[in-house]
Amino acid sequence: MPLDISARFTFRLDTPTDVLLQFEAAQLPEQAVLRADTRLSETLHLARVPSTDQIGERLLLRAEGEFEVSYAAQVEVQRQLADIAALPALDPHELPAETVGYLFDSRYCQADRLQSFVATRFGGLQGGARINLMREWIACEIEYAPGSSTSDTTALDTFVERRGVCRDFAHVLIAFARASAIPARYVSCYAPGVDPPDFHALAEVFLANPETPGGGAWHMVDATGMADPAHTAKIGVGHDAADVSFMTVFGNADYGEHEVKVTARD
Amino acid sequence: MPLDISARFTFRLDTPTDVLLQFEAAQLPEQAVLRADTRLSETLHLARVPSTDQIGERLLLRAEGEFEVSYAAQVEVQRQLADIAALPALDPHELPAETVGYLFDSRYCQADRLQSFVATRFGGLQGGARINLMREWIACEIEYAPGSSTSDTTALDTFVERRGVCRDFAHVLIAFARASAIPARYVSCYAPGVDPPDFHALAEVFLANPETPGGGAWHMVDATGMADPAHTAKIGVGHDAADVSFMTVFGNADYGEHEVKVTARD
Amino acid sequence: MPLDISARFTFRLDTPTDVLLQFEAAQLPEQAVLRADTRLSETLHLARVPSTDQIGERLLLRAEGEFEVSYAAQVEVQRQLADIAALPALDPHELPAETVGYLFDSRYCQADRLQSFVATRFGGLQGGARINLMREWIACEIEYAPGSSTSDTTALDTFVERRGVCRDFAHVLIAFARASAIPARYVSCYAPGVDPPDFHALAEVFLANPETPGGGAWHMVDATGMADPAHTAKIGVGHDAADVSFMTVFGNADYGEHEVKVTARD
Amino acid sequence: MPLDISARFTFRLDTPTDVLLQFEAAQLPEQAVLRADTRLSETLHLARVPSTDQIGERLLLRAEGEFEVSYAAQVEVQRQLADIAALPALDPHELPAETVGYLFDSRYCQADRLQSFVATRFGGLQGGARINLMREWIACEIEYAPGSSTSDTTALDTFVERRGVCRDFAHVLIAFARASAIPARYVSCYAPGVDPPDFHALAEVFLANPETPGGGAWHMVDATGMADPAHTAKIGVGHDAADVSFMTVFGNADYGEHEVKVTARD
Repeated sequence: MPLDISARFTFRLDTPTDVLLQFEAAQLPEQAVLRADTRLSETLHLARVPSTDQIGERLLLRAEGEFEVSYAAQVEVQRQLADIAALPALDPHELPAETVGYLFDSRYCQADRLQSFVATRFGGLQGGARINLMREWIACEIEYAPGSSTSDTTALDTFVERRGVCRDFAHVLIAFARASAIPARYVSCYAPGVDPPDFHALAEVFLANPETPGGGAWHMVDATGMADPAHTAKIGVGHDAADVSFMTVFGNADYGEHEVKVTARD
Repeated sequence: MPLDISARFTFRLDTPTDVLLQFEAAQLPEQAVLRADTRLSETLHLARVPSTDQIGERLLLRAEGEFEVSYAAQVEVQRQLADIAALPALDPHELPAETVGYLFDSRYCQADRLQSFVATRFGGLQGGARINLMREWIACEIEYAPGSSTSDTTALDTFVERRGVCRDFAHVLIAFARASAIPARYVSCYAPGVDPPDFHALAEVFLANPETPGGGAWHMVDATGMADPAHTAKIGVGHDAADVSFMTVFGNADYGEHEVKVTARD
Repeated sequence: MPLDISARFTFRLDTPTDVLLQFEAAQLPEQAVLRADTRLSETLHLARVPSTDQIGERLLLRAEGEFEVSYAAQVEVQRQLADIAALPALDPHELPAETVGYLFDSRYCQADRLQSFVATRFGGLQGGARINLMREWIACEIEYAPGSSTSDTTALDTFVERRGVCRDFAHVLIAFARASAIPARYVSCYAPGVDPPDFHALAEVFLANPETPGGGAWHMVDATGMADPAHTAKIGVGHDAADVSFMTVFGNADYGEHEVKVTARD
Repeated sequence: MPLDISARFTFRLDTPTDVLLQFEAAQLPEQAVLRADTRLSETLHLARVPSTDQIGERLLLRAEGEFEVSYAAQVEVQRQLADIAALPALDPHELPAETVGYLFDSRYCQADRLQSFVATRFGGLQGGARINLMREWIACEIEYAPGSSTSDTTALDTFVERRGVCRDFAHVLIAFARASAIPARYVSCYAPGVDPPDFHALAEVFLANPETPGGGAWHMVDATGMADPAHTAKIGVGHDAADVSFMTVFGNADYGEHEVKVTARD
């Protein structure tokens, strides 16, 4: 049951300007990119580099004038889905080296300041069961309200204002998880069912694999309830939205059209 | 001319508690750890894992009761010192993959919000010359005032309040550099001349190596003026202080003694 | 059943410095200051001016050197106590002119950002019954923790961190009330039972007087539960703690001793 | 040389909703309202109450459905203009009671955190000369950029981001003045030359009147440089924009048209 993905966005650069893009579904063991067609307007320079944690690629480019990005892909997702409620967390001293950095505060996820709240509200449960409770709390207490947040909005802002979009829901969940000493990272992705259709974002938490002593794995959790990990194609990961914007412009750009479509074939 | 380093700190954990430590001088091409002696109280668990960017190691441990860390080392620093004033920056599209993440905002370094200021104040210069000007601005405008900031203080707070300690000086410089599209990271380190003597922190910026097309290197910059890169031993690096605390406790600890001594042999 | 109040605090001013003080129980219809003895070190200048809303007085002074404030008073409080649960709020269009300003955001009480939360959590009740529910929510969700906040801590910080002292409890309640369009102000006061003994702070909300059409009155509410309005002597009022500090120094001061004692005679 | 003022704005209220309006030029000794014509759609309730510091009036109303406010007035401004450069500040201990509250921090003007900056940058001058220097600094360092700020933007945000509109310029100047122990308040007003034409805002500072011992007066200062105090009609004053919005809705409103026109007759 592959996903059909298309994305198209345009912008204009008045002068030669550097742009970072990361919008392609990543090639990963659990998601096979069957076909992909990326078309870009002419660039003055173009390089591809691996992105954070070697998941997906960044396009580093320099261009001028009208610019169009158009992308079409078919992705077969075969993600191992676990009932995370049954999964314990690893204690910090048991964590693999590459996950330790995801315990720390980042730009939009100031976990330290939420520790009292998290200990009180979610303290009765541990590991994946606690994460599930956090997800439910967020789904219940925070309103999904397009237009209610900006690129400056942090997890604390959303916790106070109780409104946001997928990015904000992910930030709150990441902050809650880290405040429980559970590594958590931000995932940009494509998922059907996102409304209005757009790039999507959710959280990933690192939990123990009970069958492998000392082992663990990342598990997607979507507090908005819109994405099903079984049908979600990862684009990239990072500490939070600061790391995996689909587009970062080093200068000025006039944004034009923007269209994302994702369908799961039956 | 090696550095003699000693550090000792104690704390008490009322219950079995996880602790992350990163306090040892890293073994690196440009700094040879000639001798090192790390002594820890008994632990319930102890693992060593490589830290961010493979620089230095984190000690992941679990312990209970009185705990003492004592460290003594001799480090030969042979850091290539460049006159960064002469070094251009690389454009974002030219950056090596592993430096791209250091362009983005982090917990304490919200570079995006400082872009107007940085463009106006430092816009006349580029690359290393611009970094030097930033360093001078910080040294001139921000007062070194022990006790004036907390673990919550960000680069924006320091920019507003014009007071801070080494950590805050580094955060402002990192934020300024990133606002200029120059990758910048946080370095925890040992340096003689730090007053009062303690762990030290400074910034590292990634600039072009004019002799190697497409090449570049990290360069230490200390806006406090207290550390000389030629006599500074790196402990670890990260996006900002959130990533490289010398000690992170997942629970409660009573802090005890704390002593750091660094001398450069003549 | 009068209150016996004493307060004493000292500080040192290295140069001639302006200081505002407001620490005396106010003379008010509902609280008679039976005896009061205020002793100050010598001043270069001393004026008394009425304070906000004509409640209490500010001492404006200029002094130099060691300074001691000592105050002893006996106050008979005969405050009309209402069961606020039965009192409706006035709609904004019904409010007396002098209460309208207490609907607005102030330094420490950013009510606007809490509107969603307040509407959802407390929306089922109105007027005084809603205020009571807010008080219970705060008492239940926020931990009274001396030393956990600073002079920079706002109602939003406390809402996030779930810890604070009387001042923070009052700020959260004021913010909640204003987010419900109920005028709320900050009251500094003396109350027995405050632990540790110190100046105290609580909130006052303006509710309708059902017996007087268009009429209303201010009612004290203490979310810490430590003060009984029947035995609380007001010092002053304001938008929040920014307006009614017991001491504001325009320059540098070294703080010395600080002692407050309040007892209700049987 | 009277001012001709017209303002018209519309909004829709889906349910009966309370609204506060303050948009009429105030009748004051220094500005005579020669003619005024205020037309409002039908209200369910309408009251007029004096506003902060008895300057201007607030309209407290309740209405439903389409609502239109239309206002036309002719105002003769005869404001005493002083060269503030020559005016000293009053020391806090000399201030009239009613100005003391304007020394304190408010929602958008967190003066305390700017004290170091203000002491360093403006410390060489006092009183009105210092205010002039602050005004020049703001005009020089902050870009007037419509759309760059929101209703959440504080003086600290503007100080960091170096962009804003009249409201933000006023907030920064107020914060700077208070950080120098000079009372400062926010003034909403009508002024010709505002571009784009709209309600305007500026700061007022309280300085000594050298001819009247102990006396002082409020003086308008516009850091945007757009308004001339000689041709500016005050609407209202307050601690900052939180107190003198031209319109505050206690519920939801759909905003419609909005037009302001001010001309100075020759």
